[in-house]
Amino acid sequence: MPADKTTPNARRADAKRNREKILAAARSAFADPHAEISMAEVSRRAGVGMATLYRNFPGRKDLLEALYTDEVDGICASAEALKSEPPGAALLTWLEEVFAFFMTKRQVGAELLKHSESGSRFFSDNRNRVIAAGGPLLAAAQRAHIVRDDLTLEQVLDMISAIAKIDGDAGYVRPILQSTLDGLSAPTSSRP
Amino acid sequence: MPADKTTPNARRADAKRNREKILAAARSAFADPHAEISMAEVSRRAGVGMATLYRNFPGRKDLLEALYTDEVDGICASAEALKSEPPGAALLTWLEEVFAFFMTKRQVGAELLKHSESGSRFFSDNRNRVIAAGGPLLAAAQRAHIVRDDLTLEQVLDMISAIAKIDGDAGYVRPILQSTLDGLSAPTSSRP
Repeated sequence: MPADKTTPNARRADAKRNREKILAAARSAFADPHAEISMAEVSRRAGVGMATLYRNFPGRKDLLEALYTDEVDGICASAEALKSEPPGAALLTWLEEVFAFFMTKRQVGAELLKHSESGSRFFSDNRNRVIAAGGPLLAAAQRAHIVRDDLTLEQVLDMISAIAKIDGDAGYVRPILQSTLDGLSAPTSSRP
Repeated sequence: MPADKTTPNARRADAKRNREKILAAARSAFADPHAEISMAEVSRRAGVGMATLYRNFPGRKDLLEALYTDEVDGICASAEALKSEPPGAALLTWLEEVFAFFMTKRQVGAELLKHSESGSRFFSDNRNRVIAAGGPLLAAAQRAHIVRDDLTLEQVLDMISAIAKIDGDAGYVRPILQSTLDGLSAPTSSRP
């Protein structure tokens, strides 16, 4: 073991790397909607021992929650970064990311829902964070009269989430999403 | 009993009326998404005896299937009648009816899904009938360049069905449906 592994800073950096390796491995493992992912499989894919895995995540639920929270962090950070982009385009880019989140997190979310009643608080907290982060993007696009003003972000997110649940591959679902996003544009006189 | 009830024609008319009374009662009973509807309750609401109810529908599944088929008949007949209307408006009117069908038939559909494997054939047959009936409405609207041409009717129906599954009252879900339907209009240069 290299000498610098013995300093507290190095040990913390090492621990952080392990945690990130585990989350990255779990993220890619759970991206397959049909895979049955065990803790042993996550440990194998991450290249860390079971002891390290369980030190970071005492149970499967902890790992799933960390994975989910990590993705929500990403969605929120992205909304923040997009605030400096032109309003309509910023919102659409962000909604595409939210859609990708709904698609890839379906399995993790479904499994988390099976866990105790704390699940509902966990989900509503994360939902509130997403709404708080994305609200300014919708408000800016509505103020600029680019996006229709008769929908709240809750409604837009429920719509995107509903589309993400449609059975079918990307080639089937993507045009449906596109149509749905096009519908968000502020009304013109050309509607049927 | 009036004399004319003894002729075969009168008996057939009587039987038809009873069947219709039962279906109407069952339809209104099942429109309440939270009600637990028993055969006895349907008999009571229809004002017919249990013997008459069971002569028409030997089991609960038969009643549910008849109810569902009856609604699909209505959707198909409506598509046929709308063929003479202006293309874009005809399609939108029909999709609103389909949406109402998805909303009200959620409970019947969910309960039918619990029944034997014949359920999937039952649903796919009815789905195919709806697609055959509505196809010409979408094709006409697309030929007239009123509706976007990158979606099939299957995709449009999956979209409408997904929106109908969103939790919330009509005031919440209706603007989402409107936005979704607006998105079906053929692309203009004014999109965000």
